Amino acid sequence: MLSKVLLWSLQMSLLGISLGGNVLIWPMEGSHWLNIKTIIDELLRKEHNVTVLLASGALYITPSISPSLTFEIYPVPFDKEKIDSVIKDFVLTWLENRPSPSTIWKFYVEMAKVIEEFHIVSRGICDGVLKNEKLMAKLKKGKFEVLLSDPVFPCGDLVALKLGIPFMYSLRFSPASTVEKHCGKVPFPPSYVPAILSELTDQMSFTDRVRNFISYQMQDYMFETLWKSWDSYYSEALGRPTTLCETMGKAEIWLMRTYWDFEFPRPYLPNFEFVGGLHCKPAKPLPKEMEEFVQSSGEHGVVVFSLGSMVKNLTEEKACLIASALAQIPQKVLWRYKGKTPATLGSNTRLFDWIPQNDLLGHPKTRAFITHGGTNGIYEAIYHGIPMVGLPMFADQPDNIAHMKAKGAAVEVDMNTMTSVDLLNALRTVINVPSYKENAMRLSRIHHDQPVKPLDRAVFWIEFVMRHKGAKHLRVAAHDLSWFQYHSLDVIGFLLACMASAVFLVAKSCLFVFQKFVKTGKKKRD
Amino acid sequence: MLSKVLLWSLQMSLLGISLGGNVLIWPMEGSHWLNIKTIIDELLRKEHNVTVLLASGALYITPSISPSLTFEIYPVPFDKEKIDSVIKDFVLTWLENRPSPSTIWKFYVEMAKVIEEFHIVSRGICDGVLKNEKLMAKLKKGKFEVLLSDPVFPCGDLVALKLGIPFMYSLRFSPASTVEKHCGKVPFPPSYVPAILSELTDQMSFTDRVRNFISYQMQDYMFETLWKSWDSYYSEALGRPTTLCETMGKAEIWLMRTYWDFEFPRPYLPNFEFVGGLHCKPAKPLPKEMEEFVQSSGEHGVVVFSLGSMVKNLTEEKACLIASALAQIPQKVLWRYKGKTPATLGSNTRLFDWIPQNDLLGHPKTRAFITHGGTNGIYEAIYHGIPMVGLPMFADQPDNIAHMKAKGAAVEVDMNTMTSVDLLNALRTVINVPSYKENAMRLSRIHHDQPVKPLDRAVFWIEFVMRHKGAKHLRVAAHDLSWFQYHSLDVIGFLLACMASAVFLVAKSCLFVFQKFVKTGKKKRD
Repeated sequence: MLSKVLLWSLQMSLLGISLGGNVLIWPMEGSHWLNIKTIIDELLRKEHNVTVLLASGALYITPSISPSLTFEIYPVPFDKEKIDSVIKDFVLTWLENRPSPSTIWKFYVEMAKVIEEFHIVSRGICDGVLKNEKLMAKLKKGKFEVLLSDPVFPCGDLVALKLGIPFMYSLRFSPASTVEKHCGKVPFPPSYVPAILSELTDQMSFTDRVRNFISYQMQDYMFETLWKSWDSYYSEALGRPTTLCETMGKAEIWLMRTYWDFEFPRPYLPNFEFVGGLHCKPAKPLPKEMEEFVQSSGEHGVVVFSLGSMVKNLTEEKACLIASALAQIPQKVLWRYKGKTPATLGSNTRLFDWIPQNDLLGHPKTRAFITHGGTNGIYEAIYHGIPMVGLPMFADQPDNIAHMKAKGAAVEVDMNTMTSVDLLNALRTVINVPSYKENAMRLSRIHHDQPVKPLDRAVFWIEFVMRHKGAKHLRVAAHDLSWFQYHSLDVIGFLLACMASAVFLVAKSCLFVFQKFVKTGKKKRD
Repeated sequence: MLSKVLLWSLQMSLLGISLGGNVLIWPMEGSHWLNIKTIIDELLRKEHNVTVLLASGALYITPSISPSLTFEIYPVPFDKEKIDSVIKDFVLTWLENRPSPSTIWKFYVEMAKVIEEFHIVSRGICDGVLKNEKLMAKLKKGKFEVLLSDPVFPCGDLVALKLGIPFMYSLRFSPASTVEKHCGKVPFPPSYVPAILSELTDQMSFTDRVRNFISYQMQDYMFETLWKSWDSYYSEALGRPTTLCETMGKAEIWLMRTYWDFEFPRPYLPNFEFVGGLHCKPAKPLPKEMEEFVQSSGEHGVVVFSLGSMVKNLTEEKACLIASALAQIPQKVLWRYKGKTPATLGSNTRLFDWIPQNDLLGHPKTRAFITHGGTNGIYEAIYHGIPMVGLPMFADQPDNIAHMKAKGAAVEVDMNTMTSVDLLNALRTVINVPSYKENAMRLSRIHHDQPVKPLDRAVFWIEFVMRHKGAKHLRVAAHDLSWFQYHSLDVIGFLLACMASAVFLVAKSCLFVFQKFVKTGKKKRD
């Protein structure tokens, strides 16, 4: 196997791997940036030159210094505080209106207001590049070979088209999967592919399937309405009538940030590559003091607890409730928490401003992970085979935990209604019932047992697009069809009309024969 | 890249690549056997033990001697001549009734008779194993970890289920793609995925789409009718009511013998792996005499000509016609031909009983390949970037050439109606119009530029199934749904009924209000 792989790689090199290509990155925020950062690091390691477009008001991206990495900073009419407030609004609105079958409409109405704010910021970022002639002229001279974007942050595709270079996406999902479905042409059969954010699995009862069907229609409608305004922006930018969807559909490759360890199996297309967990890596040694604390847990081991970087504090009451549950387990607990120390904190629990999450999850003493259910964290748990207790809050988190529950590697606790006992029971279950650890290990084995590592596949396809100036051979012809052609409605209509005509003609002929002969015969007999 | 690949492979080894697994192969004939033979050789190279089930009347499989390769020969109530005559009938019936839109029905009626013969032979092969208690007991003791089969030759799946081991398929296509579609649950949208044997491409006019839509319905109907009888055989064998399709749908992985260099992009599922061209390899040096002949072609180069192993001879008239066309090109020609030397044979053309096709196609002097369009030969041409003249005759050959034509790497000539000039013009076109060579080279680059070689991927997934006792995590939940659930017809029906009820209730209420108030008011006014 090894020598074959070597030979093949060598063959590929001889075929012309273009080391030192020029890659342009469209700005992303939050966990999207964390994920793309891993790809950038690997591109740099492979001696490519990477340029990141960076709005002056960007929150998460901190320009670093490296010979092959350039940050192209451009002015936008808002500051970091603005982006911070949009994100906070987004999180708060979601937390206050967490969608359930009965409250889904109210949820969408409230979210629509926040999304409008998000669009205003996005448009500022777009204008900052597209209407900045000096910057565009500079980018044109930059001889970029590919642009990497995320469909959640519009306009990267527009910039690529303006520069005449291919572009690709890296994404977890777009709202309602509408971009993948309608713009990317991936089939999403509602009978067994659960709609994003529905918290459904691929095992659905009739009621679930009705809910799922309605979810797709409703999310599609929301996307159509809320993203509609981008059509005119895109048409104006390209100087011809177009839509956001038509433009996004031109992406050469879609790097999906999941894999079949996490996803329920579903149809996809040749230009979709599932590279979930590309940021995962083996654990490094812990800081000395932390290692001592972990070792002090003895045979019981430790529990790692983090609610991610977006939600920093809890109410004092909630923190006390959690702390008292944690105090009752024999494990030691490492809790990433910045708030006031809860009064009920047990001697087995230690608070940290920050934890080396991946290194802790990869530690042999780790027994469980209490998580908000962000995709990045879940993938670290899958990578190291750690069962989870999910306290999901917003965005894809409830959905992510639903996936892990369905695969038997997690227990969910409702953050809003939970008692101390709920959390305690959940923790005891994932630690003491062997199936949770077994299932987590099964997912880990699936994750590790791929012909090529996710990060290498992601970079392979970026380089492929650079080498071949695109990947048109993977693009389905469905892009050239209207929606009624795509669903063969014109063909079915035509065939039904043919059948109806045939039935009509036969009936008419029979009637004619009947009248001509039978009636005539009757008359004659009369 | 190299070190990463190395590290990953090493990691995989540490995770437990089970060297020395036991693989069972269900017998296949013709080109199907040639293809699986490449996989077997690689499995042997990787120190697995391979057992091939071999009917005493098998035509193509010649048992060879190797320490890890066992041929388990079992008696069947027919001899080699029977299989040979079934294959000959199949080829002749096809050649005499080549399907076109106007003759398609006659074609299917004639083919139905041959297929009935094929089923009788297949059933003999099935009985030969399933009803041979001694053999089944021996196989049970063999501790096999996976069975490799082809859905064109039934019962491999049954044997695997009887032995309680996972099975996988290697296939080019099943009749009407019905097995992939109905049993494997792959979506085949008729609006842009051309039906197999239709000779359509993914760029279809309205008329084409009507034809394509009808092709799917007709082929599905033919499959349903002609393969129906297997349902009772399968039910009897498993001792419970089942169908051929339900059983075939249990395949863990489907190794498709094509790739996106050849296929038109279309939806697929996570347990489908496209490993087309896995038998291709770099050219070896030619025999001395042949090399001298090739070198004597000078700057004009050579043309390679083979109609495959199934059709050995042509009519004398057709051979003369072909020879006179070949005599008029400046290239030297190597023609694999066993018949009487044609009178018109030019001095530039040499006849051979057998040619090292892959080595010739990989020779730098080779300018074009005249081929019947078998998948194996086409893949060798793609691998080496050689443009083709297609003389397709039966089975998937016309379809294969239609693919190469659509991709700009081939010209088709109708074997039945061609003149010497037609063939000459076709040859001159592919040799002298640069786009044909360019497109062939483009396909070659696509073929070579994959993260992992097709053969390594095929073997990877066989080993994966052995390591994990299956690949259930890639199996779509669609398998658990009935056809109307799969298409959400029950959900749509229910929602329509709800809507109708709502409309009815609203209309009734309005009518009630109208009658109650408006009419009463009127009466009062009166």
